[in-house]
Amino acid sequence: MAGEEGSVAEIYAMIMAGGRGERFWPLSTAGHPKQVLRIFGDKSLLEMASGYLSGVVPPERTLIITSDALVGPLADGLPSLPRENVIGEPVGRDTAAAIALGAAIVAARDPEAVLCVLTADHIIGDTDIFRQTLVESADMAWKSDILVTIGISPTYPSTGYGYIEAGDPVEWVGETEFVRALRFVEKPDAAKARAYVESGRFCWNSGMFVWSIPSVRKALALHRPQLAGMIDRLLPVAGAPGFRSALEREYAGLEKISIDYALMEKAGNIVMAKGRFSWDDVGSWASVENHFPKDAGGNTVIGDLEAMDSSGNVVVSRERLTALIGVRDLVVVNAPGATLVCHKSRVQDVRALVRKLESSGRRKGVL
Amino acid sequence: MAGEEGSVAEIYAMIMAGGRGERFWPLSTAGHPKQVLRIFGDKSLLEMASGYLSGVVPPERTLIITSDALVGPLADGLPSLPRENVIGEPVGRDTAAAIALGAAIVAARDPEAVLCVLTADHIIGDTDIFRQTLVESADMAWKSDILVTIGISPTYPSTGYGYIEAGDPVEWVGETEFVRALRFVEKPDAAKARAYVESGRFCWNSGMFVWSIPSVRKALALHRPQLAGMIDRLLPVAGAPGFRSALEREYAGLEKISIDYALMEKAGNIVMAKGRFSWDDVGSWASVENHFPKDAGGNTVIGDLEAMDSSGNVVVSRERLTALIGVRDLVVVNAPGATLVCHKSRVQDVRALVRKLESSGRRKGVL
Repeated sequence: MAGEEGSVAEIYAMIMAGGRGERFWPLSTAGHPKQVLRIFGDKSLLEMASGYLSGVVPPERTLIITSDALVGPLADGLPSLPRENVIGEPVGRDTAAAIALGAAIVAARDPEAVLCVLTADHIIGDTDIFRQTLVESADMAWKSDILVTIGISPTYPSTGYGYIEAGDPVEWVGETEFVRALRFVEKPDAAKARAYVESGRFCWNSGMFVWSIPSVRKALALHRPQLAGMIDRLLPVAGAPGFRSALEREYAGLEKISIDYALMEKAGNIVMAKGRFSWDDVGSWASVENHFPKDAGGNTVIGDLEAMDSSGNVVVSRERLTALIGVRDLVVVNAPGATLVCHKSRVQDVRALVRKLESSGRRKGVL
Repeated sequence: MAGEEGSVAEIYAMIMAGGRGERFWPLSTAGHPKQVLRIFGDKSLLEMASGYLSGVVPPERTLIITSDALVGPLADGLPSLPRENVIGEPVGRDTAAAIALGAAIVAARDPEAVLCVLTADHIIGDTDIFRQTLVESADMAWKSDILVTIGISPTYPSTGYGYIEAGDPVEWVGETEFVRALRFVEKPDAAKARAYVESGRFCWNSGMFVWSIPSVRKALALHRPQLAGMIDRLLPVAGAPGFRSALEREYAGLEKISIDYALMEKAGNIVMAKGRFSWDDVGSWASVENHFPKDAGGNTVIGDLEAMDSSGNVVVSRERLTALIGVRDLVVVNAPGATLVCHKSRVQDVRALVRKLESSGRRKGVL
């Protein structure tokens, strides 16, 4: 029904689920990355990401874009999804390339579709509001040549997220307010974060986008012609035997660039949906604290802990007992092949540690 | 040749190796206690304790006194020892009872023997000097009615050991100086420990004793008649079928008391040998630091460690990798069933933790 007066587009979704399993090491590993872990409940992050779409985007219109190596594990973890909807990138080329790839595949199925770009890295609270925001954003993206980015009304001055500054109001669609996106800013320091939140003009940059296939192709043609060209060339072979070799040829020549740099910071037609649902980017072990209750000692525990005079710790120890005596503000993660003990202020360095282990080449069993 | 003019006694040794596996948890457990662990090299503490006696006391004159449950594991770990020399106590009744039991068995074999009382909890450096000290202490104990206790010239003001204050000189035997033992003092605070060491009059209380069977029986008759009576009653049945039931009868009525309280602090005929060998009581995880070199970051490592910005830690991780980021002065021990993370200042609380686990009754697999 695309293109008919008064109708709405078919909504597709692509979930970016690359991920090298670094930030949740040692529980996550290259072959068993964060997206497939059941850290935050009895569902994996990928199952949760797919579940958030329930009632809005059916499995047959949901794509997973991941690395070649993870196609099998991710497809196995989401049996309701058609297996051909799990697509492996030959190499990682950051989000701009992944989004162009997804857009090419969706364009081949429905050139007028609306595409929601999501990730498997988020935990969303009020899922009904989230779904409503998606549907109303799709309406907005369908009826005008704009690019919708979903901002989140901040609940505290996070220094872990990028921010989007809101400009003039555009309109309301249903319960969702749309405003001009004035500018994208990187993760701020604490003082700037406070100022942003106090101003009332800034939202967190969730990295979720909603746009029609025609609009995203037009914007890429203007700001990233190489990627627009890739869509043009992949579209005729999508789903056909020549697709894989065409994809490898295209990716070989791509530079690594995020969609923020490639498009969002350059395009003039960006509109921000002000998301009113709770949202958390689960980017490191510290985020575990946001999703589990604390014990009497102020420790966050997944698994089996015995603690004496210890507080503020995050312990993940599902398969064995962890005992703490007289320690504070540590992250302790027990995985089958390795144990991590990290000060809570240093969780961002887990990635560097994993890269150090990789480069030393002697830890095959734990990566 | 006991009792002949100018001859020396047969030297026996008993190694106290009870131990409930608490202080080196989670590597040690009730069924796999410290004495059988190979923490400090390729030999267990018990093998090391037995090895220190080489050339002085042969295996057939060496007894191991332990708990019933550990007779099998300890005998298996010391195949050179006659199996009947590993003796299980029906219940733990502290060191005074264990020593009386050992004395009864030795008295049954040779009522004039000299008995060296040792433990499986120590690491001894200069073993040649140690052996010389034992032999010269045996000479001393053989020729007079005295009780020899071995003191260690302190190398630093330890607050982890008891001290013995030296009195008047008695005599030199070979290279070993013997002095009166004026008093036994408990583990001191730091200020007292400094004063003790600076005075030059104090030695560490090693808990090692050398005495003739007649002298120890006489001293017990005077200060602990219940234990002297136990020796009298066990002696005739030692090695005979009625021994086990006699032992159970005796132990049922004994109170728990250490040899220090029962005898050493009361007897007037105590002489201290001034030991010049290096000696370390391996009483907690902190003692690991004394026996292994530190890595470039100042961490002591047994096993596999990857550390970023971490120093002063003690890591025992033989079967898996431990990774540290931004932490200081921790003890991290990875054992098959559990992981311990303990501040180095709190290693004495490991015992309390294990008792807490025991009383909760839900950790069978790790105790």
